[in-house]
Amino acid sequence: MSIQITILGCGSATPTLFRNPTAQWLEIHGRFFLIDCGEGTQVEMLRYKLKMSKLKAVFISHLHGDHFFGLPGLISSMHLMGRKEKLQIIGPEGLKEILELIFKFSETSLRFPLDIIELKAGFAGPVFTGGSFAVECFPLNHRIPCFGFKFSENAKMRNLKQDMIDFYAVPVNDRKKIKAGSDFITPEGERIPNEVLCHPPSTSVSYAFCSDTAPNSDYIKYIEGVDALYHEATFENDLEQRAADTFHSTAAQAAEQARIARVKRLYLGHFSSRYRETEIILSQAKSIFPETETVKDGYSFTVE
Amino acid sequence: MSIQITILGCGSATPTLFRNPTAQWLEIHGRFFLIDCGEGTQVEMLRYKLKMSKLKAVFISHLHGDHFFGLPGLISSMHLMGRKEKLQIIGPEGLKEILELIFKFSETSLRFPLDIIELKAGFAGPVFTGGSFAVECFPLNHRIPCFGFKFSENAKMRNLKQDMIDFYAVPVNDRKKIKAGSDFITPEGERIPNEVLCHPPSTSVSYAFCSDTAPNSDYIKYIEGVDALYHEATFENDLEQRAADTFHSTAAQAAEQARIARVKRLYLGHFSSRYRETEIILSQAKSIFPETETVKDGYSFTVE
Repeated sequence: MSIQITILGCGSATPTLFRNPTAQWLEIHGRFFLIDCGEGTQVEMLRYKLKMSKLKAVFISHLHGDHFFGLPGLISSMHLMGRKEKLQIIGPEGLKEILELIFKFSETSLRFPLDIIELKAGFAGPVFTGGSFAVECFPLNHRIPCFGFKFSENAKMRNLKQDMIDFYAVPVNDRKKIKAGSDFITPEGERIPNEVLCHPPSTSVSYAFCSDTAPNSDYIKYIEGVDALYHEATFENDLEQRAADTFHSTAAQAAEQARIARVKRLYLGHFSSRYRETEIILSQAKSIFPETETVKDGYSFTVE
Repeated sequence: MSIQITILGCGSATPTLFRNPTAQWLEIHGRFFLIDCGEGTQVEMLRYKLKMSKLKAVFISHLHGDHFFGLPGLISSMHLMGRKEKLQIIGPEGLKEILELIFKFSETSLRFPLDIIELKAGFAGPVFTGGSFAVECFPLNHRIPCFGFKFSENAKMRNLKQDMIDFYAVPVNDRKKIKAGSDFITPEGERIPNEVLCHPPSTSVSYAFCSDTAPNSDYIKYIEGVDALYHEATFENDLEQRAADTFHSTAAQAAEQARIARVKRLYLGHFSSRYRETEIILSQAKSIFPETETVKDGYSFTVE
C-alpha cells in the first residue's frame, strides 16, 4: 500500500498570497481523503486537478478557522454539482451544529447524505476503516480541542515458506491461521514454531498528521515509528515563548518529537505568515532530526 | 463625491480558477466598504493591496455561501492582526447567530466590537449614514431573503447667484435656508422664487448593487436613475428558464431592468461558472441597454 499526500495549504492563521491555510489531499488505494479544509481549499483542488466528486471523507483537526472555513463552501459546491454519494466528516464537537446552522439559513437541503462523526475532547481511537487501512485519532495539545490523525495499513499476513509447508504437510485449512501468526501442531503433537513456517510480513505503511499542537509526551505513543509524520512547526526556535503562548511548536520542538517517536521521516508545515521562506525552520529541525523536509503548497510526497 | 468600486469576485455559486465568488471593495471619501464577502475575499484584498484594517462596514446581500463564506475568515484575520476599531456588518437575519456560533467553538473573544445590524426579510430603508452619503437597502427577488444596496451622496445645497443675493440684499442668516431650497420674502413682503436666487445643485452620485435576483418591478424604484447599477446576469438569454428556476437574471433581463430604471450605466456580473468569457452576455445586454459593461475580477471603475 502507499499513501500519496498533496499539500493544498501549509500556512497558519491568516492566508497569504504565497501560502494557503491548512488542507491535505490523500490518496490511498484509489480512495481520496482530505485532512482539514481551510478557506480556499476547493480552489486549490481545482488548481491541482483533484476531483471533489471522488472525496470519501474529510478529517477536521479542530475548529480554528484556518483549518475548516473552506468546508461549508466545499460541501455547497458538491451539492451544486449534483453529488449523490455519502460524505463522511470526522471532526470535533460543534462542527455539526455549525454546518447545520449555515445550511438552515441558506435553505439548502443537501442532495447527498452528510455523515458527521463528532469527536469528544480528549478522545483517542479508531474513526474510519477503509478495508486495508484504518484511521485513528488522538488528542493534541492546543488551545481548543484538537486531534491528530494516523492512517495505518492493517497488519499484514506473514508469507508462507512453501518448502516448509510441504515438508510438514500443513493442511490447506490450517494455513490461514499460520499466516496470521499461529504455530503448527503436527498430527504427532509436535509444535512447529511460526517462524520456521513463515517469512515475516512486509511492513505496514503509516502516516500521522499533527497540527496544531504544542509538543508534549502524551501523543508520542500514537505517532511512534510511523513512516511519515507531518508536524506543525509554526515558529523558528527563537519564538519558543510565542509558540508556548499560542500552543504551537517551534522547529526544534517538532524535530524533537519526531526523534523521540522514532518516526522515519518528518514533514514540517503550518508556518507562520512571517516566514515567506522556510530555510531557517528546516535547518533548525535538521540539526535534531536529519530526515526532515519542509513542505509547500502543491508539494506531493508518497509514503510506501 | 466619487465612489470607486473594485471587483474582488464576480462569479456565481462555485468558485473557479478564473473567477472568485462575489465581493466588491468600495472607497468613498477615504472610507472603505465591502459588499459581500465570498470565500477567498481576503486573499483578493491582499492581491489588490486593499487594507482590511481600513474597512468600516461590510454589507452582506444574502446567506448563500458564495456571498458570505469569506466573512468568518476575514473577521478572524482582523482579530489576529490586532484590530481595535468597531466593524459594522449589515446583513440578513441569521448572520449574527452563525458568526457567534463559529466564534464560540473557536473560543475566540474578538479584540474589536462587531456591530451586526440584521435586516428582516423584505425590509427597505436606510442602513448606514456616512456624513456626506448614505446607504439604503431594499429587497430583491431571490430564493431566500436577499437585499440590494444603494450608496447615494446626500442631496446637495443649491449654489447662490451672488448678483441676485446682492440685488435683493438677502441677509446672511437667511442664505442657508435659500441654499436648501426656500424662497426669500423681502422686508416688503414680496416672494422671490428660489430659482431666481440659486443655480440648481450639482447632481448627487449614486451606485446600486443588485445580486442575486430574478427581475421584477418591485425594486425598480430603488435603483431609478442611479449613476451606476451593478446587476447580476448569471445566464445568457437562452437559459431564461434556468434563470427563473434559480431566481437569477439573464443578460436581457438585467439590461431591461436598467432600461426601465433609466440608470446611467450598467455593470454586469455574477456569471455562471460555465462562462469563461462573457462576450455573449455583453452583446445580449447591449442590444437592449447600450451603456453596459461586463466586469471581471480585479476590474475597477469610478462613479462620479
